[in-house]
Amino acid sequence: MPESPYPMIPVEQAINIILQEVHPLPPVRVPFTDALGLVLAEDVQAVEPMPPFRAASVDGYAVIAADPTPVRRIAGDQSAGYVDDLKVTSGTAVRVTTGAPVPSGADAVVMVELTEEQDGYVNIRAGVESGSNIRPVGQDLASGQLVLAQGTALGAPEVGLLAMIGKTEVLVHPAPRVGVMSTGDELVEPDISPKPGQIRDANRFSLMGAVREAGGIPVDLGRITDETGTLHETIERGRHLADALLTSGGVSMGQLDLVKPYLAERGKIHFGRVRAKPGKPVTFATLDGVPVFAMPGFPVSALVSFEIYVRPALLKMAGHTHLHRPRRRVALAHDVPHSAGRTEFQRAIVTPNTPGHYTAVTTGFQGSGRLLSMHGANALLVLPYQEGNFPAGTEVEAIITGPMQDFRAQPDG
Amino acid sequence: MPESPYPMIPVEQAINIILQEVHPLPPVRVPFTDALGLVLAEDVQAVEPMPPFRAASVDGYAVIAADPTPVRRIAGDQSAGYVDDLKVTSGTAVRVTTGAPVPSGADAVVMVELTEEQDGYVNIRAGVESGSNIRPVGQDLASGQLVLAQGTALGAPEVGLLAMIGKTEVLVHPAPRVGVMSTGDELVEPDISPKPGQIRDANRFSLMGAVREAGGIPVDLGRITDETGTLHETIERGRHLADALLTSGGVSMGQLDLVKPYLAERGKIHFGRVRAKPGKPVTFATLDGVPVFAMPGFPVSALVSFEIYVRPALLKMAGHTHLHRPRRRVALAHDVPHSAGRTEFQRAIVTPNTPGHYTAVTTGFQGSGRLLSMHGANALLVLPYQEGNFPAGTEVEAIITGPMQDFRAQPDG
Repeated sequence: MPESPYPMIPVEQAINIILQEVHPLPPVRVPFTDALGLVLAEDVQAVEPMPPFRAASVDGYAVIAADPTPVRRIAGDQSAGYVDDLKVTSGTAVRVTTGAPVPSGADAVVMVELTEEQDGYVNIRAGVESGSNIRPVGQDLASGQLVLAQGTALGAPEVGLLAMIGKTEVLVHPAPRVGVMSTGDELVEPDISPKPGQIRDANRFSLMGAVREAGGIPVDLGRITDETGTLHETIERGRHLADALLTSGGVSMGQLDLVKPYLAERGKIHFGRVRAKPGKPVTFATLDGVPVFAMPGFPVSALVSFEIYVRPALLKMAGHTHLHRPRRRVALAHDVPHSAGRTEFQRAIVTPNTPGHYTAVTTGFQGSGRLLSMHGANALLVLPYQEGNFPAGTEVEAIITGPMQDFRAQPDG
Repeated sequence: MPESPYPMIPVEQAINIILQEVHPLPPVRVPFTDALGLVLAEDVQAVEPMPPFRAASVDGYAVIAADPTPVRRIAGDQSAGYVDDLKVTSGTAVRVTTGAPVPSGADAVVMVELTEEQDGYVNIRAGVESGSNIRPVGQDLASGQLVLAQGTALGAPEVGLLAMIGKTEVLVHPAPRVGVMSTGDELVEPDISPKPGQIRDANRFSLMGAVREAGGIPVDLGRITDETGTLHETIERGRHLADALLTSGGVSMGQLDLVKPYLAERGKIHFGRVRAKPGKPVTFATLDGVPVFAMPGFPVSALVSFEIYVRPALLKMAGHTHLHRPRRRVALAHDVPHSAGRTEFQRAIVTPNTPGHYTAVTTGFQGSGRLLSMHGANALLVLPYQEGNFPAGTEVEAIITGPMQDFRAQPDG
């Protein structure tokens, strides 16, 4: 049989091709309460200043700072939530609560802890500085100020800011909907006891989990058998339900390699092989503009390929501009065999030992079927093309995919 | 007015008290498809070996490696998904697809790329090693093997492993449900135009976002006014709907400080003040075993206090054992004023400059109302109690709360 018609391209080139072909999804307007984790597609300004009035920042007494009277008559109460018709004059004070408007005349608030109150009079036990414990109008936000810029990923503080300025609907890039399907006649559902020759489908579920972890919305397109009709139907259905499609299996080099011929006929294949291990047969196509990522069927190959090719694409579709994981130089704790023919991604646990120095231990047997080699890993070692085995102590590049067991993660104060 | 009856305790002591009082939630059994992000409350073993049969790892021809015949007769096809009654003998080969059972007699699979087929015969162009391209039974998982241990946080690979071994229901700690309420007569809903003296409620929304980011499920208990009746009703309602309660506002030192007296009467207050800025009046209580975190009303104070006290507690309730954020020593890029009376958490952007060396820039005016000081921050600087101002270049501790703009985050291969 001849070699594959698809040239084997470098990993970096594959990533670049994908990122040229995928684009941020068209913005939609959503309630701000649905916007957590999404990326803003418009600039957001404050309409009013914040605070909108001079506000007491403590519970206490609004006074005139320069007033020499030590014991002042309490002229009334100003609670938070409304504006009373009160005025502070020389010799008087007004009780205020945190967040209350400071009555006219007053230029300072004295904390209740520094006072004594008796029979309608308050004794101020400390010197008072003008402006103290008053938040001036616009201290936190000026009227018209740019609060959040287009491209901002909305986290908890940003959602709070939207609430604060009354921006209850925002234009955002939606989370990409990703249709996930598995191919392979040997696959059965996880709740089925496999017959001889069968195994349970793992990829659909790990990939849907990976989509969710990347901020996408997985759409389960089911398990399809190696028959072209079903593949066709599922891809056409998925194209309407989802913003991107993810297949696993059916991309290797045999008689039943169905995915690639279908994609080549129906859309455009941008690459069909990558010089990577695992994940050599990874295929990327577009089909009426919908990106289709065809992953190998081995569980590790599928998840590693997702991490390398699909995750950055989904982040770009969601409007993010930081698409890549952090990388670190890490020292190998043991010899790592590597054959020079492809870039290899080995699963590893990276631990910081001293600031700026990291050690990597691989997660045992690195077979493409051994999903357990992904479990507990927080990094992918990048073992380069055209370099051979790596002895213990060698520094290599690692893609940091998860949190490290930190040498400094202690509570303190 | 006398000082608060609650002693001001150090931050670390407050965290320790909380972590002694909160416990992992009782495990529940859920479909494995709902388990992403949750923590396993049981050990999970493989019942069968994986692969369960000798499986071809490539498309090609199953052969006897030592067979000297260069051109072998094709005795049949063995596809994935079932077991045919085929046997490989000297001088013959059987076509196999990736994932197919290797027929009896064969001890190797030759990749299709290294062969030529004509008229029912296959020409093997390369030497064949015994065992090549065959995944032996149990190579990935042995029968009875511990696959996932109790305490494992379930990510994408772990969900795939559960599917693979047919563990379709798992015992996990549920995500904590956290009731969130705001207090304050000055507060209106975000979609309302505030009248004089009023502001919009931001905390309820930022805190619900923070709960979700910490893996919890926020339960909106609404905005309650400074009237004891409503506070009582909301807390009692929340106690039945949620595993923990979060209030903001109404904990400072005035006439309308309602939350603390209510919690003291109804449950047990474990601490009522912390030597921290922001967040001095943070209060922690339990009420029939339900933890109640009473946060200050200032937007920054509420969110910083959530990060310091509530997030580790929610992670513990969810069954996690790694509760704390990573910390780094960072060099200040500019002078940072700090008053020695309390531990201060200033919001900052930390950037790595060289491996192991980080620079911190604070996010401007650090007022407790200026929620914008949280926006874009990826760290909280920990400025210690009993130390004064910090000149530029000083190294201080930083809690890393978000991703860093990485100096190495480039795709490559």
